[in-house]
Amino acid sequence: MISNQIVTISREYGSGGRIVGKELAKAMDVPYYDREILNKVAEESGFSRELMEEDERKAGNGFFYNLSMAFGSGSSGDYTSINEKFFLAQFDYVQKMAKEEKSFVIVGRCADYILREFNNVTNVYIYGDTEDKIKRAVEKYGQTEEEAEEIMKSADKARANYYHYHTGRKWGDPHNYNLCIGSGRVREEKIANIILEYIENREA
Amino acid sequence: MISNQIVTISREYGSGGRIVGKELAKAMDVPYYDREILNKVAEESGFSRELMEEDERKAGNGFFYNLSMAFGSGSSGDYTSINEKFFLAQFDYVQKMAKEEKSFVIVGRCADYILREFNNVTNVYIYGDTEDKIKRAVEKYGQTEEEAEEIMKSADKARANYYHYHTGRKWGDPHNYNLCIGSGRVREEKIANIILEYIENREA
Repeated sequence: MISNQIVTISREYGSGGRIVGKELAKAMDVPYYDREILNKVAEESGFSRELMEEDERKAGNGFFYNLSMAFGSGSSGDYTSINEKFFLAQFDYVQKMAKEEKSFVIVGRCADYILREFNNVTNVYIYGDTEDKIKRAVEKYGQTEEEAEEIMKSADKARANYYHYHTGRKWGDPHNYNLCIGSGRVREEKIANIILEYIENREA
Repeated sequence: MISNQIVTISREYGSGGRIVGKELAKAMDVPYYDREILNKVAEESGFSRELMEEDERKAGNGFFYNLSMAFGSGSSGDYTSINEKFFLAQFDYVQKMAKEEKSFVIVGRCADYILREFNNVTNVYIYGDTEDKIKRAVEKYGQTEEEAEEIMKSADKARANYYHYHTGRKWGDPHNYNLCIGSGRVREEKIANIILEYIENREA
């Protein structure tokens, strides 16, 4: 087990980033987390998982997502919008995880931003050519090429908008990550090796 | 010696990418090339190295660089601008190198674009946080912080404009490269290890 190392993975739809995360967690012998932590966040915060997921999908429409700022809880002086409340609940949960567990792999959740003050974190971005990503989606999810292209566009748009809205950063800009790996010519478990090589070679 | 492997390195000013290229060439036991190939290009094409270098610097001002399209050689029907001619001379030279030598490391020169049809090429982008890059420039080149910041801005702007003008691509967009490595927390020779790990793990 590799100790005191957290890896966050951000990924384009169809790039295989989620599988990279699982392979990496296995290789490091540490826990793996992704969207499923919403169950835990729901438990601790009292918010509904379904509403939180719905909120993320709505981010695909940046304009209306921003508008929803207007719908705060309305209680005296509390103008935090509901999507900010959802985000803050996740924010607190992921930070708590990092303080308690020290070592894990987490996919998505803006974890690179949430954990930006932690020294033991490596941020990775997995991306690919449109053609390769569609091919992977067709193979793994049984979509037609047209479906895959449509879903990919809308999923990545939602991710980019959600990330930008909550972090003020541009999703997919290399400067947000320590390492960006194109998945077109390397298998998922091999990408995990490259990430391990980074971790082993980086300064404390 | 690693055979039949070409690595192109694009890098932000102050990111240490040139040293990474040298360390990598040493580790692979293959030749290393950079701006110095302009001497050879000059020899083969008859163009002046000084003028070619001047042309690259001019790219910092994108608007005037594009305008220089207007100054073709003027001979009957030949409207290729002088900056395109310089670029094409390099283009031919780098392609010839790839066909003849098979294995080398090359820094800059839009080599990722020039060699995009070659299967044995790995394209790498080395980048960094502004603060880290300034620090490196101060240490390595003896600049003051203010000088380093100024030179960095102007050098990277020229690189981005030159690249975009000649390739139609956005410089620094991960999709142009197989691997992007932030140099902030990893020494140059260690970054070479990570690139080697990528090469060893990629599909043919």
